[in-house]
Amino acid sequence: MKEVLAIIRMNKMNETKRALADAGLSSMTARKVVGRGKGKVDYLLLQGAEEGFDEAIQQLGPGPKLIPKRMINIIIPDDKVELAVKTIIKVNKTGSPGDGKIFVEPVLDAIRVRTSETGDEAIVEQEAVLT
Amino acid sequence: MKEVLAIIRMNKMNETKRALADAGLSSMTARKVVGRGKGKVDYLLLQGAEEGFDEAIQQLGPGPKLIPKRMINIIIPDDKVELAVKTIIKVNKTGSPGDGKIFVEPVLDAIRVRTSETGDEAIVEQEAVLT
Amino acid sequence: MKEVLAIIRMNKMNETKRALADAGLSSMTARKVVGRGKGKVDYLLLQGAEEGFDEAIQQLGPGPKLIPKRMINIIIPDDKVELAVKTIIKVNKTGSPGDGKIFVEPVLDAIRVRTSETGDEAIVEQEAVLT
Repeated sequence: MKEVLAIIRMNKMNETKRALADAGLSSMTARKVVGRGKGKVDYLLLQGAEEGFDEAIQQLGPGPKLIPKRMINIIIPDDKVELAVKTIIKVNKTGSPGDGKIFVEPVLDAIRVRTSETGDEAIVEQEAVLT
Repeated sequence: MKEVLAIIRMNKMNETKRALADAGLSSMTARKVVGRGKGKVDYLLLQGAEEGFDEAIQQLGPGPKLIPKRMINIIIPDDKVELAVKTIIKVNKTGSPGDGKIFVEPVLDAIRVRTSETGDEAIVEQEAVLT
Repeated sequence: MKEVLAIIRMNKMNETKRALADAGLSSMTARKVVGRGKGKVDYLLLQGAEEGFDEAIQQLGPGPKLIPKRMINIIIPDDKVELAVKTIIKVNKTGSPGDGKIFVEPVLDAIRVRTSETGDEAIVEQEAVLT
């Protein structure tokens, strides 16, 4: 079982979410983060500041810039990692700096709270395939 | 040392936090996330949209739905993992879809910034037990 | 490859970010979290409530207190972990409770979306050193 963690552009969030769902990988969480790769400023910083994201506002001043991003986490069986990575790259690759990064981290166990199922049973999504 | 990461309903946050503290597991972080398991829409989405959570607002339109959730992270010695999982399940199990999931991930080391203590020393909570 | 995850005071965010960039560790993400160590209340809670952070507002009532914090994540080659930890401690150690904690977690792989580079190649920051 692995955690695939992707840091992507804000405006790629919906498309990425749909592509993952279409690939049968619909269980995910997402959150707002601010981040920087190689330190280039980005028009998204201005957009984030306009949305009232306070780190974005602060970063319009001097110093290294942090850019509002979305972080997506999906936890999947080992044999789905390649599919997840390819799906995320397909949607997010524009060729410009800021396309984001994907990290793969180990997960020891998963438990579904409702049923107390553990392991891959807890993360398999039978219904998502059928609906 | 392990990280126990739980994705729970927003309205279970305070009760979960208290139950973990009562079990002697008071060191934690929490954050807002949006997530989906099997894709069912949830009244919490409307609540999240009312709170101005922008992903919630966007998800009221077409496409796979993301629901505002809370994510709790606690980092604990290996022998506390079972206690943490049971405590979280006890508070969060309603029997309905959306009860959430718990993941267990490996942690290699911890460092307390104030004292530079490392390993389990950095995460033991002597005072929390006494107060 | 490792993930170094630091939970720090809100008002140390900019200084920490600059110190990491000065140390050549400029790729990072940051996010808002609420957290507690040993359960002491903190003036930052009041500050968080004033900023409209809802968990902070709720925690002004009875029950264990959660304090607004910043979480920084950096993913770096193994040989940079010690530098990252020392840099974070140097900026954040005040000697008072609430200085924060640092965790080190394993990362199995990294992929740069733009180029599909993997492994340490995906996280090396040549340009950050030169600019």
